[in-house]
Amino acid sequence: MYITRKFHFSASHRVYNPVLSDEENFKIYGKCSNPNGHGHNYVMDVTVGGEVDELTGFVMDLTELKFTVEEEIIKKVDHKNLNIDVDFMNGVLPSTENIAMKFWDQIEGKINTDHIKLYSIKISETVNNSVEYRG
Amino acid sequence: MYITRKFHFSASHRVYNPVLSDEENFKIYGKCSNPNGHGHNYVMDVTVGGEVDELTGFVMDLTELKFTVEEEIIKKVDHKNLNIDVDFMNGVLPSTENIAMKFWDQIEGKINTDHIKLYSIKISETVNNSVEYRG
Amino acid sequence: MYITRKFHFSASHRVYNPVLSDEENFKIYGKCSNPNGHGHNYVMDVTVGGEVDELTGFVMDLTELKFTVEEEIIKKVDHKNLNIDVDFMNGVLPSTENIAMKFWDQIEGKINTDHIKLYSIKISETVNNSVEYRG
Amino acid sequence: MYITRKFHFSASHRVYNPVLSDEENFKIYGKCSNPNGHGHNYVMDVTVGGEVDELTGFVMDLTELKFTVEEEIIKKVDHKNLNIDVDFMNGVLPSTENIAMKFWDQIEGKINTDHIKLYSIKISETVNNSVEYRG
Amino acid sequence: MYITRKFHFSASHRVYNPVLSDEENFKIYGKCSNPNGHGHNYVMDVTVGGEVDELTGFVMDLTELKFTVEEEIIKKVDHKNLNIDVDFMNGVLPSTENIAMKFWDQIEGKINTDHIKLYSIKISETVNNSVEYRG
Amino acid sequence: MYITRKFHFSASHRVYNPVLSDEENFKIYGKCSNPNGHGHNYVMDVTVGGEVDELTGFVMDLTELKFTVEEEIIKKVDHKNLNIDVDFMNGVLPSTENIAMKFWDQIEGKINTDHIKLYSIKISETVNNSVEYRG
Repeated sequence: MYITRKFHFSASHRVYNPVLSDEENFKIYGKCSNPNGHGHNYVMDVTVGGEVDELTGFVMDLTELKFTVEEEIIKKVDHKNLNIDVDFMNGVLPSTENIAMKFWDQIEGKINTDHIKLYSIKISETVNNSVEYRG
Repeated sequence: MYITRKFHFSASHRVYNPVLSDEENFKIYGKCSNPNGHGHNYVMDVTVGGEVDELTGFVMDLTELKFTVEEEIIKKVDHKNLNIDVDFMNGVLPSTENIAMKFWDQIEGKINTDHIKLYSIKISETVNNSVEYRG
Repeated sequence: MYITRKFHFSASHRVYNPVLSDEENFKIYGKCSNPNGHGHNYVMDVTVGGEVDELTGFVMDLTELKFTVEEEIIKKVDHKNLNIDVDFMNGVLPSTENIAMKFWDQIEGKINTDHIKLYSIKISETVNNSVEYRG
Repeated sequence: MYITRKFHFSASHRVYNPVLSDEENFKIYGKCSNPNGHGHNYVMDVTVGGEVDELTGFVMDLTELKFTVEEEIIKKVDHKNLNIDVDFMNGVLPSTENIAMKFWDQIEGKINTDHIKLYSIKISETVNNSVEYRG
Repeated sequence: MYITRKFHFSASHRVYNPVLSDEENFKIYGKCSNPNGHGHNYVMDVTVGGEVDELTGFVMDLTELKFTVEEEIIKKVDHKNLNIDVDFMNGVLPSTENIAMKFWDQIEGKINTDHIKLYSIKISETVNNSVEYRG
Repeated sequence: MYITRKFHFSASHRVYNPVLSDEENFKIYGKCSNPNGHGHNYVMDVTVGGEVDELTGFVMDLTELKFTVEEEIIKKVDHKNLNIDVDFMNGVLPSTENIAMKFWDQIEGKINTDHIKLYSIKISETVNNSVEYRG
């Protein structure tokens, strides 16, 4: 059984690798490497898998899942600049793939128990593009 | 190959476990345990997996899948109270997880053949919360 | 200039007019008159019209609009039974039209000023049905 | 008859009025005034009204409308910083209301004829917030 | 008070004006004039305006509105070719504007009474393009 | 890590197997076998799986994925008749399942490398029906 909760956050970023020249960055990242940044309304689906608890009828209390994700991720990235403002993204190229992996590291240890495991983090950057990371 | 059909139903429920006190119920279920119930527009995706039939070009006739799900599930739960009105939910705590498992039991035997198998039932309770059961 | 904020609430109701017989109720309201009620995820768009304030660049602070609607409406109807639990719906047949009119009365006086006016309350009961009230 | 075409663009901004102190800005704009900016996937609906041309069956060629909006607006704001990179937003507080008014000025003269008129620009900043400007 | 019901239909068409040459057709309609046709999932919102009936709490019985639109429009166009199969579209260039006007003529007389009036037919041809006709 | 890009195309088709009689075709395909065809706005999600490249932060450049799918699929099927106009669908019954398999064959060889593999093609024919092919 898998349970999923959706989250929204709005952030700006610049996709730019400092080890490369501006020309190489533009060749790889196009308009996403524009110097003054741009931004997105990110939509994130966090999925947890496990057995259903007989007493509660839940895999996991969604309120608890919501609290963990908001404390560890949303409060730190919403209405922020992902290149500058987020401690756990420090020095990380903010591609959607890297964002998903860093988010996973933020919450996996707080969610997993003997009975339930973080299964997937899916992040949509726009209505057309998304990534899904399964650890 | 997987095929999916989407269904909608509107129902009320109260998430409340009678073996627990009102206080314990409120602690676990919060406003979902309000005495007079509340309701949702549930959205359900039923997915069936199998090989494509060479003659028809279909894994399974979607009209047949639609008929089975409407007869066995939708007609019994749409515009109903899940705590009171649904025979196969009798005595079942109507968490979304439990709803998905009971729905699975209603249709698995009528869908599975040597060639196709019920693969997943995904139910969204709100735009933010969903569960997926894979049997 | 019009600004709109979207709200969600989940509630149960029974559409039933006590001055009519059960048969007449069923003829008019169909399955919506089922005795034990059913429910919906309502989606509401509240629209306010006015001039843009030169200092703030806003027609109205959306945080203030959100606070007013949540205090006066959402907290009173979310995860509630609209026939029983909501004081300002007392004795009102909970058709979507009547819900929209009662909601209007709850907030109009708290939103309107010399410069801005409540313009529209749009409520979707399902993905297919909605009403819009403009006062 | 009204015709509408939808457009998407992703941009960053900081909602901050330099004539106010940081404290006043934070009081009015909250997290939207964060120093390093944030961003959104904006969705814009441009609506034009007029009579249907008997020869073409169109109010206006949607390809022409698309070209005008992309040349005059989208190319200038997509993947850009609205506070820094956009000439026609120079010195303008980038509230969604002000964005809509400046966009209107960009295209009204290029769309209006004796037969058709720009009717509305609707911009959604997030799934919950939108503004509509009708000139 | 306005009430809206959403309808879906899937149809094929070719946008082609026989009084023009193939070259002129291609210049105006582009790929929409391809000889063998193409198709869409059309989404239609039909809106009716009027006063709320005190007895029923409804502007109009949505079941009745649904029945009228399905009988007069949907059954005649769903899974059909709009250039060939639809009697009331005979000789009409199937632009979305013309479709909306012909649909209006199909239902206005059956909906309007002293108390309620057909207010708007909105048809989305794709997720990006729509027209709205108000009579 | 999985990355997904969404594509849209509009096409007409007739679901009809010439080895069967008209009656048998109607029995299996219903209104989908109407002689003059009908059409849909298809939505397609193409998903690629692989490791994240350390230099770029990407599994695969989405611009390259977009180019491949547009060249090999979208340009050949958008605003076309799937029974007549598409070389690689020649003689293929255009059920959504068969469409997905033929699309897979069009792009798999151009996407797969030692590091990344085409993982899934999901095609929605309507808002209610979809298929997913995983090779």
